[in-house]
Amino acid sequence: MPDMGRWEPNARGRLERAALELYIERGYERTSVAEIAERAGLTERTFFRHYADKREVLFGGSSALQELLVGTVARAPEPATPMEAVAAALEAAAAVLQERQEHARRRQAVIAANAELQERELIKLASLSAALADALRQRGVDDSSASLAAEAGIAVFKIAFRRWTEQAEQKDLSQFIGESFAGLKAVTAGT
Amino acid sequence: MPDMGRWEPNARGRLERAALELYIERGYERTSVAEIAERAGLTERTFFRHYADKREVLFGGSSALQELLVGTVARAPEPATPMEAVAAALEAAAAVLQERQEHARRRQAVIAANAELQERELIKLASLSAALADALRQRGVDDSSASLAAEAGIAVFKIAFRRWTEQAEQKDLSQFIGESFAGLKAVTAGT
Repeated sequence: MPDMGRWEPNARGRLERAALELYIERGYERTSVAEIAERAGLTERTFFRHYADKREVLFGGSSALQELLVGTVARAPEPATPMEAVAAALEAAAAVLQERQEHARRRQAVIAANAELQERELIKLASLSAALADALRQRGVDDSSASLAAEAGIAVFKIAFRRWTEQAEQKDLSQFIGESFAGLKAVTAGT
Repeated sequence: MPDMGRWEPNARGRLERAALELYIERGYERTSVAEIAERAGLTERTFFRHYADKREVLFGGSSALQELLVGTVARAPEPATPMEAVAAALEAAAAVLQERQEHARRRQAVIAANAELQERELIKLASLSAALADALRQRGVDDSSASLAAEAGIAVFKIAFRRWTEQAEQKDLSQFIGESFAGLKAVTAGT
């Protein structure tokens, strides 16, 4: 293909880092794509080769996360219960996210400050839940149990993730996920 | 206040019914506020006294539903567990929704056909979950358990509601909620 622009080493990562810096320094609303590109030392044209708009910089990892969750459910050993398969998927996601804790914390702060971004995050989580449920159905799990295990898993993940990004201590995301699963089991048993 | 327009008996209900009819006949996107008002035999001005826009006709009941859920959690007897308080709230909501099954079914069909409405519905459910969690915290439930019980309850409700509106049989919403709670307990125990 002609004219794809010159190759920029790790342009995507540089744009993501620059965007997050600016969103925290001056706020998401008051940051433009031109400013993100400038901070990253790249052109706007390069920005739009990687991201549709400034919002999508914060959600660029969604499809990789979804593939990881779905793939882990698909590969869970045969005797795993639906919830064990979901737990394995969340553990796999936690291992990846743990490597980027500072990034996750900053991203979370930006999202918490903006209603539109919170809505986009809700939609992302709903998509992850639907994808998890589908992956469970592919394993032969009945429709209702698949939806319930997926929804419960995403609820656990959401709460664990929030605690992890807000914590003062230095516990791993994986520990918070374990605690939240135990918490869900305790509240669910109490009916 | 001068000029509030003449009083129209049950204008709100008439507008809601007219809107739903039109959304089903010709699609949500292709229906205008003017057409809704005309079908209801009212003016556009009256429409805007009751609803901010054509989308909000579908979400006008959200705050009453939230008050019912929160009030029921608040009034649950002292020894109720968090999940029992949430279950009581969902039962109260089910009793009200059961009275309007045909309306609920039609509304669900309109929402299922439109991505923007589905997003609005997700936001509504997230608000209900946050309100339920707050109501549980007011009862002295710890932060994590409150969030988990609320999220799990809303997941149960969402799945029960979908099954109820899609069913061929004539089971009550309340029965689907009971089945979904049992399903959640079963999948959660399997970890």
